[in-house]
Amino acid sequence: MNYKNRVQRVKERLKGKADYLVLGPGSNMFYLTGFTEEPMERPILLILGEQDYMIAPKMYEQQLSGLSLEVRTYVDGEDPYSLLQIKKGSSLAIDDQLWSMFLVSILNRFSPSDLILVSPLIAPIRSVKDEEEIGIMKEGLKIAEQSFMEFISRVKEGETECRLSQILEGIFRENGVTPSFSTILTSGPNTAMPHLRCTERKVRKGEPVIVDFGIKYHGYSTDTTRVVTIGKPSQEVTKIWEIVHEAVVKAEESTYGLSGMKIDQRARGVIEGRGYGKYFIHRTGHGIGIDVHEFPYISPDNGDVIPRNSVFTIEPGIYIPEKFGIRIEDMVIMRDRAEVLSSLPKEIYQV
Amino acid sequence: MNYKNRVQRVKERLKGKADYLVLGPGSNMFYLTGFTEEPMERPILLILGEQDYMIAPKMYEQQLSGLSLEVRTYVDGEDPYSLLQIKKGSSLAIDDQLWSMFLVSILNRFSPSDLILVSPLIAPIRSVKDEEEIGIMKEGLKIAEQSFMEFISRVKEGETECRLSQILEGIFRENGVTPSFSTILTSGPNTAMPHLRCTERKVRKGEPVIVDFGIKYHGYSTDTTRVVTIGKPSQEVTKIWEIVHEAVVKAEESTYGLSGMKIDQRARGVIEGRGYGKYFIHRTGHGIGIDVHEFPYISPDNGDVIPRNSVFTIEPGIYIPEKFGIRIEDMVIMRDRAEVLSSLPKEIYQV
Repeated sequence: MNYKNRVQRVKERLKGKADYLVLGPGSNMFYLTGFTEEPMERPILLILGEQDYMIAPKMYEQQLSGLSLEVRTYVDGEDPYSLLQIKKGSSLAIDDQLWSMFLVSILNRFSPSDLILVSPLIAPIRSVKDEEEIGIMKEGLKIAEQSFMEFISRVKEGETECRLSQILEGIFRENGVTPSFSTILTSGPNTAMPHLRCTERKVRKGEPVIVDFGIKYHGYSTDTTRVVTIGKPSQEVTKIWEIVHEAVVKAEESTYGLSGMKIDQRARGVIEGRGYGKYFIHRTGHGIGIDVHEFPYISPDNGDVIPRNSVFTIEPGIYIPEKFGIRIEDMVIMRDRAEVLSSLPKEIYQV
Repeated sequence: MNYKNRVQRVKERLKGKADYLVLGPGSNMFYLTGFTEEPMERPILLILGEQDYMIAPKMYEQQLSGLSLEVRTYVDGEDPYSLLQIKKGSSLAIDDQLWSMFLVSILNRFSPSDLILVSPLIAPIRSVKDEEEIGIMKEGLKIAEQSFMEFISRVKEGETECRLSQILEGIFRENGVTPSFSTILTSGPNTAMPHLRCTERKVRKGEPVIVDFGIKYHGYSTDTTRVVTIGKPSQEVTKIWEIVHEAVVKAEESTYGLSGMKIDQRARGVIEGRGYGKYFIHRTGHGIGIDVHEFPYISPDNGDVIPRNSVFTIEPGIYIPEKFGIRIEDMVIMRDRAEVLSSLPKEIYQV
């Protein structure tokens, strides 16, 4: 990855918008430096401005010495913020994911005149994936899909949702990768809650089991959802699945030039047309890259054209409270037209 | 857990300090409601003040219906901040871990007169563990330690650091738990970097391998470090290990009434006395609970008495750049005196 070039491009977009860019550990720092760390209470900050530098605890000094950036270190007990050079009354562009404890410390110390978020500056750059990033994401998706196929053969009646989730995440580790988010694995009525992770409920015959899973591979994320049943799905499950499937296909047939809103509407229109509009309670998809959720959003409020070479999900769903929910999710890249990266057949996986 | 009581105690401490408390997904929200979610771009906020309520995407509605709290929902595309009732010019206590994107949106919309961080208000409550929490943490530690012992037998010359890390994390999953942080597993000269996670370096005979690992159990974290060698450790490794061991024991023999600074100094004094002071480049320990790192800190700048029933780590280390590092880490609870919760023998684990 050409980090210097990425830093240059971000700094160009910063001009006239803010005097300093302030990033914490997370996807933007990884994108610009390759350095990754979980956010913690000790400040690790990347500042771009008149000078570009990082501040970090001394214990990271050797680890950061490979970066082509000045690193200013402090030891526990010293004041990290004394290492920052920010002129009073200047304007700051802040990392969206920076913990507030660091922002509040900076606000109280440097009284900036203006605060903006960095995402509108950096999203147009990060949204457009280069071929190296696309290659990594395809490779990661292959491992995720292989893991899912290994997993399918281990789904049995009477296992709990959380146990099945652990089995899948165990397969990820055996395959040398880690989950990009805590796997969603729900069954029966629990599938009506799109973001519930898992419970101790045991999976039963005929019910839908939703498996929404992703892995992290060389810093990039994947995200896929498939529906599994033990034995034959009920007629109602099949019927709802087919509507969602039609909605997915419709959105995946989008061509370049459409806005996020328009692609969302393609999927939503199918579901509304069948009378299930009020049960589709989220957007159609989200960009994906280093973060599982990033720009561009396939959402009713995104009027921007989805850029060429952006990677995003298509994942409409229908959730009938107390009964069940169905979601199908693919990863897609926008070229002249949307091209589906996911290669797992879209079907109800009967085991 | 008695969430209502926790909310009441936090609100009492809020009085006179700030008009509203603003929390995002993370340890404080979990502590006060039992609800857990990874932070993401859609706002999920808990507000305590004249009224107590959550705002969340509609897709979480059913999932949150079990909480004894008002939940105000929005769908993707709607403005979540219109659901907030915050009087202009009021003062806010902000979750330390809240993503800046939410804080900046709130600042721009409600122009608060004053911002404080919530940690000084909530730390005195969260630092002191009740017996239910202590029971969970002991149980979690038992699983982490059993997993480590299973792991030891699978360490072999020629395996890479990252592969070994995956093996350990795989054992966690088999035992039904997840890592509380990305395992640190380094070897040889890499051990001089305290927070490096792992590399493709192969482990070799006689070198130190540092394993710094923890799991999450019912929402609570563990954190332990042990040194492993393949075959006999070198004389130098043994010598440094013995100094660190002495420092650990010295800190663990602390009695109630000492400040974080004083306990830090007990460990630091041993290492300084042997002439390695400049190679001990971090604090002696940190509180642990829902977060891996939380109050109270066993740090040179913490003059506060370590509270009774707080749980924290003791983890001094010596890091000789380009050569190797040694760290030993236990979990400890402060009763009338510090009591070591970790039961893994403190020794160099030869395999």
